[in-house]
Amino acid sequence: MADRLGCVGIVGVGLIGATVGMALRQRAVAAQVVGVDIDAQAIAAAREVGALDAGGTDLSVLRAADLVIVAVPPDGVVGAAVQAAAHMKRESVLTDVASTKAEIVRALDDRLAARVHYIGGHPMAGSEGRGARMADPALLLGRPFLLTPTEHTDPAAVSVMTEVAERLGMLPVLLSPDDHDDLVAQVSHLPYLLAVAAVGAATDRAIGIGGPAFSGLGRVARSPVALWVQICRSNRAAIKRSLGQFRRELDRLERALDGEEALETLLQRSRRRAPVDGAPLDKPHESVT
Amino acid sequence: MADRLGCVGIVGVGLIGATVGMALRQRAVAAQVVGVDIDAQAIAAAREVGALDAGGTDLSVLRAADLVIVAVPPDGVVGAAVQAAAHMKRESVLTDVASTKAEIVRALDDRLAARVHYIGGHPMAGSEGRGARMADPALLLGRPFLLTPTEHTDPAAVSVMTEVAERLGMLPVLLSPDDHDDLVAQVSHLPYLLAVAAVGAATDRAIGIGGPAFSGLGRVARSPVALWVQICRSNRAAIKRSLGQFRRELDRLERALDGEEALETLLQRSRRRAPVDGAPLDKPHESVT
Repeated sequence: MADRLGCVGIVGVGLIGATVGMALRQRAVAAQVVGVDIDAQAIAAAREVGALDAGGTDLSVLRAADLVIVAVPPDGVVGAAVQAAAHMKRESVLTDVASTKAEIVRALDDRLAARVHYIGGHPMAGSEGRGARMADPALLLGRPFLLTPTEHTDPAAVSVMTEVAERLGMLPVLLSPDDHDDLVAQVSHLPYLLAVAAVGAATDRAIGIGGPAFSGLGRVARSPVALWVQICRSNRAAIKRSLGQFRRELDRLERALDGEEALETLLQRSRRRAPVDGAPLDKPHESVT
Repeated sequence: MADRLGCVGIVGVGLIGATVGMALRQRAVAAQVVGVDIDAQAIAAAREVGALDAGGTDLSVLRAADLVIVAVPPDGVVGAAVQAAAHMKRESVLTDVASTKAEIVRALDDRLAARVHYIGGHPMAGSEGRGARMADPALLLGRPFLLTPTEHTDPAAVSVMTEVAERLGMLPVLLSPDDHDDLVAQVSHLPYLLAVAAVGAATDRAIGIGGPAFSGLGRVARSPVALWVQICRSNRAAIKRSLGQFRRELDRLERALDGEEALETLLQRSRRRAPVDGAPLDKPHESVT
């Protein structure tokens, strides 16, 4: 990759698209950032927060792009990527930011190969907010940028996106689409469903009392539902495996409450294994596949 | 209660004891704050962070106290309260800060009645930290201070503690010890066990990837284990009821993943019901019993 990219295009300037756009511009990763969205107001908002140099509702703005990042909700990724590729320079790079990868990568790997270099991507960042006005480059800092090359992926796509991730202050991690979906089910999709179930199970009076741990669950449960319905459908198999593993752990804990297993041992084990905020990944640049 | 309390004694100057001591002094709720701890180093740390005017390892420092707050781990509360009461002025007020109430209040209501006015208390605040050096009065701000009077409780204890809670910037909430344990199981004890189980179920690779929701669970799972073993034992029945309710919600969600129920409806319901950070309780000063 050159000193910096010429033009980066972003398709879909919601929370993540606009956050990436702001970071690309603030860190001078690209000479120009252009955006496309079916909603002209979203483009206006993204320009206001400084996420774009230019933008519009027409995919033709992507024709100068060296890299296009498709940042629409999961169900729209394949359609948007195919349409975007038709406007892009040959041999430019296309990625996406969806939270599930196997289904999307399977659909795009072959279809895009003749035109552009595709690699699946997933910046592990977000908030319960929506839209460009909630965009914040700080969401990206120190977070993993998961990249899911396959045997069809052009090495240029891997090297461009690895470098873009680093320049955004993120930690590029390479893994297979299936491994991605399995790991993300455990650390993102399962926690979301646990938060939804805990809030769903609580009485109104209990919710009124709150508490720090419950506030954390509440924050997660307030995430946009339309997005999560798509994630749950797309990654159903891995989520169900993760749910099964979680249920077995919960069963053990409940037996320990009844004195049949050493409660303290189970609690200590999770205390030791729990991630520490902001701790760097051990080997950010190495494939963990 | 007079313009301010004369002397407040704190038994056990760990995270919560020292946090309350700092807040009492910074907000001039009491003319003097004295501390007792079996660990002289803990007293030294509490004095260094500004939580105490004076302190030591001998309960005799409590003899001037108008109010004593027992802030030792749950298993030690009854013993420490009985010992403290023996050194206190007659008709002074004694409370505790343990996260479970029914067992403790049942044990103390009769035993202390002849000497002091006891009322169970539980400031809903905390962090994963331990010890006076992690104390922070900001942990208390806007949080509920649950108070659990019974038919044996002297009205003086209710009015003193209601006013102390308000002056600490907290929201006093009155409820029965059984209701307390039921509600707190849902919003504090269950979330802790869910975090422990989610971390326990995750593979090492998944933990390495992390993500915002998983970091939140990790923070909760890092809470002090010795304390939580005591809480789990003391509130086992309510925790198991809450676990049962949670499992039913999780079963519904899993059926919805399989398309047998409307997933979106369940997700929307929890999104609507989820607590918003920092939102004030509807009726802070009214009993929710």
